[in-house]
Amino acid sequence: MAKTSAGRYFEDFRIGDVIRHAVPRTVTTGDVALYTALYGPRFAVQSSDAFAQAIGYPRSPIDDLLVFHVVFGKTVPDISLNAVANLGYAEGRFLATVYPGDTLTATSEVIGLKENSSRRTGVVYVRSTGWRQDGTKVLEYVRWVMVNKRDEAAKPHTELVPELATTVDPASLGAACPSIHAAGWDFGLSGAPHRFDGYAVGEKIDHVDGMTVEDAEHQLSTRLYQNTAKVHFNHFAQVRTRIGRRLIYGGHVISLARGLSYNGLANVFHVAAINSGAHVAPLFAGDTVFAWSEVLGKADLPGRSDVGALRLRLVATKDRTCEDHPLRAGHDYEPGVILDLDYWALIPR
Amino acid sequence: MAKTSAGRYFEDFRIGDVIRHAVPRTVTTGDVALYTALYGPRFAVQSSDAFAQAIGYPRSPIDDLLVFHVVFGKTVPDISLNAVANLGYAEGRFLATVYPGDTLTATSEVIGLKENSSRRTGVVYVRSTGWRQDGTKVLEYVRWVMVNKRDEAAKPHTELVPELATTVDPASLGAACPSIHAAGWDFGLSGAPHRFDGYAVGEKIDHVDGMTVEDAEHQLSTRLYQNTAKVHFNHFAQVRTRIGRRLIYGGHVISLARGLSYNGLANVFHVAAINSGAHVAPLFAGDTVFAWSEVLGKADLPGRSDVGALRLRLVATKDRTCEDHPLRAGHDYEPGVILDLDYWALIPR
Amino acid sequence: MAKTSAGRYFEDFRIGDVIRHAVPRTVTTGDVALYTALYGPRFAVQSSDAFAQAIGYPRSPIDDLLVFHVVFGKTVPDISLNAVANLGYAEGRFLATVYPGDTLTATSEVIGLKENSSRRTGVVYVRSTGWRQDGTKVLEYVRWVMVNKRDEAAKPHTELVPELATTVDPASLGAACPSIHAAGWDFGLSGAPHRFDGYAVGEKIDHVDGMTVEDAEHQLSTRLYQNTAKVHFNHFAQVRTRIGRRLIYGGHVISLARGLSYNGLANVFHVAAINSGAHVAPLFAGDTVFAWSEVLGKADLPGRSDVGALRLRLVATKDRTCEDHPLRAGHDYEPGVILDLDYWALIPR
Repeated sequence: MAKTSAGRYFEDFRIGDVIRHAVPRTVTTGDVALYTALYGPRFAVQSSDAFAQAIGYPRSPIDDLLVFHVVFGKTVPDISLNAVANLGYAEGRFLATVYPGDTLTATSEVIGLKENSSRRTGVVYVRSTGWRQDGTKVLEYVRWVMVNKRDEAAKPHTELVPELATTVDPASLGAACPSIHAAGWDFGLSGAPHRFDGYAVGEKIDHVDGMTVEDAEHQLSTRLYQNTAKVHFNHFAQVRTRIGRRLIYGGHVISLARGLSYNGLANVFHVAAINSGAHVAPLFAGDTVFAWSEVLGKADLPGRSDVGALRLRLVATKDRTCEDHPLRAGHDYEPGVILDLDYWALIPR
Repeated sequence: MAKTSAGRYFEDFRIGDVIRHAVPRTVTTGDVALYTALYGPRFAVQSSDAFAQAIGYPRSPIDDLLVFHVVFGKTVPDISLNAVANLGYAEGRFLATVYPGDTLTATSEVIGLKENSSRRTGVVYVRSTGWRQDGTKVLEYVRWVMVNKRDEAAKPHTELVPELATTVDPASLGAACPSIHAAGWDFGLSGAPHRFDGYAVGEKIDHVDGMTVEDAEHQLSTRLYQNTAKVHFNHFAQVRTRIGRRLIYGGHVISLARGLSYNGLANVFHVAAINSGAHVAPLFAGDTVFAWSEVLGKADLPGRSDVGALRLRLVATKDRTCEDHPLRAGHDYEPGVILDLDYWALIPR
Repeated sequence: MAKTSAGRYFEDFRIGDVIRHAVPRTVTTGDVALYTALYGPRFAVQSSDAFAQAIGYPRSPIDDLLVFHVVFGKTVPDISLNAVANLGYAEGRFLATVYPGDTLTATSEVIGLKENSSRRTGVVYVRSTGWRQDGTKVLEYVRWVMVNKRDEAAKPHTELVPELATTVDPASLGAACPSIHAAGWDFGLSGAPHRFDGYAVGEKIDHVDGMTVEDAEHQLSTRLYQNTAKVHFNHFAQVRTRIGRRLIYGGHVISLARGLSYNGLANVFHVAAINSGAHVAPLFAGDTVFAWSEVLGKADLPGRSDVGALRLRLVATKDRTCEDHPLRAGHDYEPGVILDLDYWALIPR
């Protein structure tokens, strides 16, 4: 029996398979400090225990995207070690608050399979779930990846392309956000006066600042998440590929863009759901990341007067500023666009 | 109303303005680990809970300069986002001990304004204060920065150049250092036998070692402090400037030099005050930092027999060793000098 | 009296000298997070408090190699500041579990001295011991280093080459591993089904993955361990040497290789002893590290049915994959081999 894992190929997946992923991971204030050092986030709830307590949290929760990256990292050895590309996300929901000291595990269910016309690859759809040590679901999301076949002649047992919601129903949001004491929210300390009513559908915000990424930085982050995808770490192998360089984990881009988005979205404190997301183009060390946001929608949360939900498009670019809100040029994305993420986030009312 | 902050310009400041800065920040042992990884400090009180407890602390306090950087970082978006240069520091005093778990906030009062003869910029003087979650002042310092004007024709409401003490009165030192149990100080563990009486005014010490700085390192540190100054992170913009590269945060240099100074000042465990400081020249990635110190003065602390104060000049250089104690060549600093810091520090008697 | 330490030269050592090293160091979850970010280890016991508790630990212990590096780091200023090369390790044993919050100190006894025929250097043998704040030994190992002489004419007081065991007696292993509740070991969560009986003497395992190292990374790690060896940090000085670059701390290679070895040794959760080790060739930034392992032996632990010991050879290479298990070419190591480490590790039965 082979001791090392070569990862699953397309024909190894079956619809309905439920995969329990290794390795459980306790998240600590050490991880929080590294997350701050890597992306510079300034959202007050995650930055300050005192601020979090003033609105009703027992202490600062772990940043939602750090939870996402840790859960995502666990799925890599089983789902995407032989992936060609990470194609998309949908139906992502944050379901419970995670605090320092909590331990995360992950499972994935195979919910779709579709061979590509080339016969050399296929698309695998999984619904991945993150769990807390007490058995509570903390996160759920669908992603689909293009995975190599071991054997071109192999056929999938069943093919199915799942029907996925284009957006998460806002009525289902907010499970990971306790009822907050809105009067305790100090808009001076949080950094901006804008609350739910201050944002309008259609509004576009250039987040202005740029952040250049170094190889050491994305390697530190990706290892922190115990994400083992080879393309991020192995210069020796990458220079022998068409790409020629280490690829930066797409989640690193999401966290950088979310960090930059503080400048314009200072009170948008909680990522509640991921409607859809695409890594439009790769990022490499030495590139500078910029970001802009568009308010795509607004929603009340049933029975809650403390917070409202903004549906936001977060676009990241590389080596291109965003004052003109670059996105599409015809059917394609504009050159320089690297991320197009559609998510729901909470903000005080 | 604009959602993003463009920062204040010279004409936006008024004498007497008190600015409450965003974002509160809880400092943890995660931050301490990163601080150690970034600068390699070896001062025993901050390195070891057991050592700290043996002399009367409840546990290791947060490094004074880490407190300084976190407080400084908060002031950047309001004070120096449009700064041309950070000109100086004075009247800095550490006022209360900070421990892991404490949350820091900051305020600044505008205490001086002076338009430059070019009319394109002016100098803004602020007294910044760091606060603990319980309302205790932990740090106070004055800094002055050269800030761009939005409109050349604008005039400051009032002009005033504050009178600042050239040194902090040693009688006011020590508030952030609890009374220590000197018999518990283990000079074997701390790394050197030299105590207060072992240093003489005029003594110069070459700290010998050199430390090369990488872009990933100073970016991690500066984001850790939530310091948003654009010049440190945005290669894309910096290559389009006269400087052509990312500038390293001056505080990174101070912490590197302080770390190097352990070799010669092993028992100088607490920075109590900053008398004055100047970033003489910029530091860039790839440069190697060296440091030397001069004992400028010595002082008893009123009513305290546990510790004494050394007034120290800490000089940092780049790509130049310090065995000849480089400082000035006529009116100018010698080539290679990048930092000239005058501070008070405590050492056991 | 000189304030800075120039380190000991060969003639400064005497057989029987016991050196107490500065500086005590409290290890925290912050250090654990950085260790994870630097090497990406995935061994479940160290990654998850919940997993550790399920088998009987009070919480996740500190990674054995992190303990080793912290203890090693303390010895550098006294033992190897003037070293030319770190020649070998032997008789290393982990003696007590270390948890976050514990404080480590170190001592070394000089157990051997041998002048080299060149008369410019000599070999110093020390037995170094790491201690917990409660006076418990946590680690003991012998290392020998080639150290410069200050004065070529100086002779060592006594010469002695100690007799060292070629392997640590397996009957002495296990002190740092509490009796574990084997039924609580979840082989799904740990990442592989292989336990003690699943490994055979002579078995060779290629760990497949490669990890490229950046200067920022090894500098962060080496400072984290408060290891002050100049060759790792000072580009300005190194470019003036024959080597021309910063050298990467050998322990960084050990931790990288151990991290890579998870893929094949997922349940080998505890390094119990170091039989011998050699840094065969230097590693530099930009190089990619690969690793493979060979099972050299197996042993029962007296009176324990929970765990068994595997004697493993861990070989690391640079810019060379390991599917052919590179090691020796005649008397020499094969080009590309950088580490040859022989250790005992524990695994559930």
